[in-house]
Amino acid sequence: MPSFTVFKGSKEGKIVQSTTTKPDLFDDQVLIKVTASGLCGTDEHYLHADQGLGHEGVGTVEATGPAVKSLKKGDRVGWGYITWSCGQCSWCLTGRDQYCEQAQRYGEANHDQGSFSSHAVWNESHVFRVPDNITDAEAAPLMCGGATIWTALHSYGIKSTDRVGVMGVGGLGHLAIQFAAKMGCEVVVLSSSDAKKEESMKLGASEFIATKGKDKLEISKKLNVLIVTTSFNPDWKQIIPILSSQASIFPLTVDMGDFAIPQLPLILNGYNIYGSAVASRPVHNSMLKFAAHHQIKPVNMEFPMTVEGITKAMDTLRDGKMKYRGVLIPVA
Amino acid sequence: MPSFTVFKGSKEGKIVQSTTTKPDLFDDQVLIKVTASGLCGTDEHYLHADQGLGHEGVGTVEATGPAVKSLKKGDRVGWGYITWSCGQCSWCLTGRDQYCEQAQRYGEANHDQGSFSSHAVWNESHVFRVPDNITDAEAAPLMCGGATIWTALHSYGIKSTDRVGVMGVGGLGHLAIQFAAKMGCEVVVLSSSDAKKEESMKLGASEFIATKGKDKLEISKKLNVLIVTTSFNPDWKQIIPILSSQASIFPLTVDMGDFAIPQLPLILNGYNIYGSAVASRPVHNSMLKFAAHHQIKPVNMEFPMTVEGITKAMDTLRDGKMKYRGVLIPVA
Repeated sequence: MPSFTVFKGSKEGKIVQSTTTKPDLFDDQVLIKVTASGLCGTDEHYLHADQGLGHEGVGTVEATGPAVKSLKKGDRVGWGYITWSCGQCSWCLTGRDQYCEQAQRYGEANHDQGSFSSHAVWNESHVFRVPDNITDAEAAPLMCGGATIWTALHSYGIKSTDRVGVMGVGGLGHLAIQFAAKMGCEVVVLSSSDAKKEESMKLGASEFIATKGKDKLEISKKLNVLIVTTSFNPDWKQIIPILSSQASIFPLTVDMGDFAIPQLPLILNGYNIYGSAVASRPVHNSMLKFAAHHQIKPVNMEFPMTVEGITKAMDTLRDGKMKYRGVLIPVA
Repeated sequence: MPSFTVFKGSKEGKIVQSTTTKPDLFDDQVLIKVTASGLCGTDEHYLHADQGLGHEGVGTVEATGPAVKSLKKGDRVGWGYITWSCGQCSWCLTGRDQYCEQAQRYGEANHDQGSFSSHAVWNESHVFRVPDNITDAEAAPLMCGGATIWTALHSYGIKSTDRVGVMGVGGLGHLAIQFAAKMGCEVVVLSSSDAKKEESMKLGASEFIATKGKDKLEISKKLNVLIVTTSFNPDWKQIIPILSSQASIFPLTVDMGDFAIPQLPLILNGYNIYGSAVASRPVHNSMLKFAAHHQIKPVNMEFPMTVEGITKAMDTLRDGKMKYRGVLIPVA
């Protein structure tokens, strides 16, 4: 196999199919045949760039480089937003390699690669084994969406006794409901209308609040945690009355604007706002194990991995009609 | 002594001297003869209200109520923003009584009281013994300003190996420099001009950056912690390049506007923003002991506690000319 297919963005913002020569495998690199890729909101940000798209990849190892230690042909692996880190700096050494200053991120690493492709070459050190009882299509949205949700829920001291508000039921939100519920938390979903109420309750929510047009939200007890997965700032006039003092707030959407909150309640109520995205390697691994143990599964809409299929998936996401994560499946 | 003097705000925003009948002492109440009061920026917010001003009080116990256990006549005590809490709720029981939902705060407790007065009556449970080697005038600014700084530095995991940026050298900032330096931290002061450089270094800073008009700030190493004591949001274009990943940011000024920060660096760099104000009782006590042990002293400008003196002190603060905390001293 001398070459593989890569789907890229372009100046005009159209998906372009291109061909990349298969590189030789150095060091601990592995060649992966892609079997599924999630579509993340941030792919939109790269749509006008000449580079491989996609960073929720899952596939099968086809070949291994000379320094590969544990992976072998046929192993199922996934990868996410961070594709390499130095392993030597204080971030890497303390298990927070997502902050490694030399880390290569999606879009910086290799412009001829992505998970919207037939194959990809990455380092063994930065791909993750997919647990046996999670399918490829189920695993894909966990590689960025699941990682982002899990870091927030797992790495900032949230306890099983906390009441977790999840604002927005989409690619991130529908995973947040499941992960938080399986952690033992009471999960309160905040969504504009009642449209997603039934599904939210099935996913593990114990309370659902439709927010649109309401001056005052009715809630049984205040929230300790607020996971914001909407692409806009919360309407704080609505939200602050239902937040407990010292509530932890996680704005998780990649957005080019400002995160803003009224300063007086921020300081008098002692809110903690945590910026967080994706996961370190140890946290990413713990997320996959937790998802496997609890059979946490994204709700996916599948599209063929073709120019048309990717375009349709991105249109669906842009129109707010994705329920809840788009997954691209290579055509035979 | 059938009555005492109280200085209040008024509709017109002028300081008014008034007389309050000395109440009988119930339960664990103590009558305190005021000897010094700090002036806090938040006093300005109450200037148009008909209520006693001041919440950085220090004085001497003159009389004790029937349930007072440990204080006696002649003891030196101080009090701050929180004047009562329930003692029964989960906040009080976990040593975070500043979040008690029944807590009485300055301005809510008793409109005829404040620390701009000749006397005050508070509960023994919410006044603090002033250590022997801190004078009354030195202790006063610690009761709110010191408490606010210390909670940020002491209660959010800041380590002696951290590099602490202090933005703004005023009532809060000049205390932050001292407390952080005595904790063993490297302290980097950010101020608009070099005017306060020499004094900042004397107070314990190891690095000083004048920010005005600079596109790019020169710093020897990035900051882990940023204490914002200015009344405006930081210019993030300047500040973000000198912040480490996972930096902890404390916006400490009481302000009616929004705290805002660009969302992309917030989440990708993993900043933690902590809302925090004043201190719980145990933290307040530890602050006084730490200040006494290290001889941390506010730099004060003293004014007589008269209508003219208070007016002049508030004008001085409003004009940005207070170096660095105003303290009102009752006239004989």
